[in-house]
Amino acid sequence: MSSAAMGDATVGSAVDLAERLMACESVTPARGAVFDALAEMLEPLGFTCHRFISGEAPDGPVENCFALRKGPEGTPHFAFAGHLDVVPPGEGWHSAPFLPERRGDLLYGRGAVDMKGAIAAMAAAVQDIPQDAGSISFIITGDEEGPATYGTRALIDFIREQGDIPDLCLVGEPTSVNRLGDMMKIGRRGSVNIWLEVEGVQGHVAYPHLADNPVPKLVAMLAELEALHLDNGTEWFQASNLEITDLEVGNPAHNVIPGKAKARISIRFNTTYSGAKLGEMVSAIAEKHGGTARPVISGEPFLTPPGDFSHIIAESVEAEIGVVPEASTSGGTSDARFLKDLCPVIEFGLVNATMHKRDEAVAMEDLLALARIYRRITMAVFS
Amino acid sequence: MSSAAMGDATVGSAVDLAERLMACESVTPARGAVFDALAEMLEPLGFTCHRFISGEAPDGPVENCFALRKGPEGTPHFAFAGHLDVVPPGEGWHSAPFLPERRGDLLYGRGAVDMKGAIAAMAAAVQDIPQDAGSISFIITGDEEGPATYGTRALIDFIREQGDIPDLCLVGEPTSVNRLGDMMKIGRRGSVNIWLEVEGVQGHVAYPHLADNPVPKLVAMLAELEALHLDNGTEWFQASNLEITDLEVGNPAHNVIPGKAKARISIRFNTTYSGAKLGEMVSAIAEKHGGTARPVISGEPFLTPPGDFSHIIAESVEAEIGVVPEASTSGGTSDARFLKDLCPVIEFGLVNATMHKRDEAVAMEDLLALARIYRRITMAVFS
Repeated sequence: MSSAAMGDATVGSAVDLAERLMACESVTPARGAVFDALAEMLEPLGFTCHRFISGEAPDGPVENCFALRKGPEGTPHFAFAGHLDVVPPGEGWHSAPFLPERRGDLLYGRGAVDMKGAIAAMAAAVQDIPQDAGSISFIITGDEEGPATYGTRALIDFIREQGDIPDLCLVGEPTSVNRLGDMMKIGRRGSVNIWLEVEGVQGHVAYPHLADNPVPKLVAMLAELEALHLDNGTEWFQASNLEITDLEVGNPAHNVIPGKAKARISIRFNTTYSGAKLGEMVSAIAEKHGGTARPVISGEPFLTPPGDFSHIIAESVEAEIGVVPEASTSGGTSDARFLKDLCPVIEFGLVNATMHKRDEAVAMEDLLALARIYRRITMAVFS
Repeated sequence: MSSAAMGDATVGSAVDLAERLMACESVTPARGAVFDALAEMLEPLGFTCHRFISGEAPDGPVENCFALRKGPEGTPHFAFAGHLDVVPPGEGWHSAPFLPERRGDLLYGRGAVDMKGAIAAMAAAVQDIPQDAGSISFIITGDEEGPATYGTRALIDFIREQGDIPDLCLVGEPTSVNRLGDMMKIGRRGSVNIWLEVEGVQGHVAYPHLADNPVPKLVAMLAELEALHLDNGTEWFQASNLEITDLEVGNPAHNVIPGKAKARISIRFNTTYSGAKLGEMVSAIAEKHGGTARPVISGEPFLTPPGDFSHIIAESVEAEIGVVPEASTSGGTSDARFLKDLCPVIEFGLVNATMHKRDEAVAMEDLLALARIYRRITMAVFS
């Protein structure tokens, strides 16, 4: 097929496509129907969908899809990234969460903004982009909302094996806050959870000299950790922050000194640190107080410093809807923590007000506008 | 019946009586058969057994018995106190825990030392004491090993209503450590458990400014409590001691700042304090850190300072078995914490090495010796 033929194919508006994706029940981890729906949109446009299942229980199996439409040799490769899994709908919806419903200006259903709506906008955006302009890919996982062990990480391994490394990647997470276009994420903090434990010797409260209470040691350890001043933030990041998220002894007997005490902390950190460095710092403090620390790094921080890519996004948003997006690094983690290892990555998408909530909804006008913005960004990258 | 007739009645040796009590299954709270067995021993000796059931679930119902043999007007009233309930036997016994078995010099069975053996020795001790020497009573509960809500406290209410307040009370808890007679308890520390709680505002770890983590406040509160220097001990007591016995947040979500944090402490305290005073001290510290404290006083401390009563006990022990008991205030609480409100109280009984363990056992020779010691103490009080 010629590139012209590709450019003529259409698969529907962003609203139509969003409805088709949202009608597929795909609570994390997602497999099957929702990926069939995506493939049905992309294949007519000339994409080759590489679908594969990764992982075993408990964190898998997970379905992933790398859809690629190659442009001529030497043209840029622009990647869209996102996820088709959604969080569980919960109770109390006004319409069935997996039967998308248009009411007034809004389209209701789980995944409307996080992030089937954005993936629909991506598919709508690329349908009239000529194939000879450049390579376009979709890096789509079925596990971003869950443990993410076999999701985007497996996709990155696959892409590396294929050798089709993108030059730039746009993640469609819902980064807008009050109105479409007001914020993009040029970085995210890293995240590490650390399990702390102190072993003692159980005994009777009346005979403390025969026991060794681990709780005062844990309390002293936590007091020292809580008093740590990690940093003052960086040019692009707020200060790193430590929260104590759990305490556990589990001793129902009033007259018993417990034999073990546990806690968990969570640190969100900027580019001053790596997860490993924080793990070592906390371990040293834990050991000083007779305890141990077991760090589990959820993600390292990433930063795509303001430059050509962020300017393209900002200009495209402003040109389409007259809004200038703020470049932010706030908030939680996303799969950009993994994708940053492939190429520069920025996140830009819908308004996040209803994400993870009941009656999740997207303004249909925003879906159409986002498709136009994504199209303009892609064309700007290719030019 | 004349006192002489009473004095002639015999109900058996302390070993026989112990076997009869130990053959009644009476895991705390105890009712019924074991109290029937006691009444069958005491009624032939001229005692009137006032048996009554106290309390409702969950801490009741509990059986109690106040057995009284009045002496002539103006003579002293000496009380024995104790409990017929036992802790659960657990697994792994070499003989059935409620089928008392003589093997070698020992009598095996649950309650052998804690404290059916001592109650048997009391009953054996009084069987040839003339009724005109003085009033003798048995203050026996079926709930000392459990919550003790409706046990000795209900007996004290009953005794006060009857107006038969004893002049001195001997509690038969197993106070001896290495050999019969080596220790009596002239006091016990008080005990208070305090539940601590801090309320915060739950939120996402990535947005700590929207949450209010209660854990650092609890940690600071516990650090201050742990650093308290309560006292240096008194002439008769070791220093008061505070132990942190539990921590609880119960937050499984790694990325969530919890909304509530809880802890429990246990303080064993000497006569420098009252439970209420400690409750106020800890509450003030808890409030300073934005939390609350809920104290539950298990018992106030008691002290019967060395004097006539302790001398009678020491001299009786030495006269019968050549051992001089140490006057101690160490260890856990007992029902003496309640009985001290009636009259001076001291605890003296069997060797505690096997109490609450499997294969609980008493030397039969100790049972016979304890009966002689209890008899000698009673006669000395009356003379």
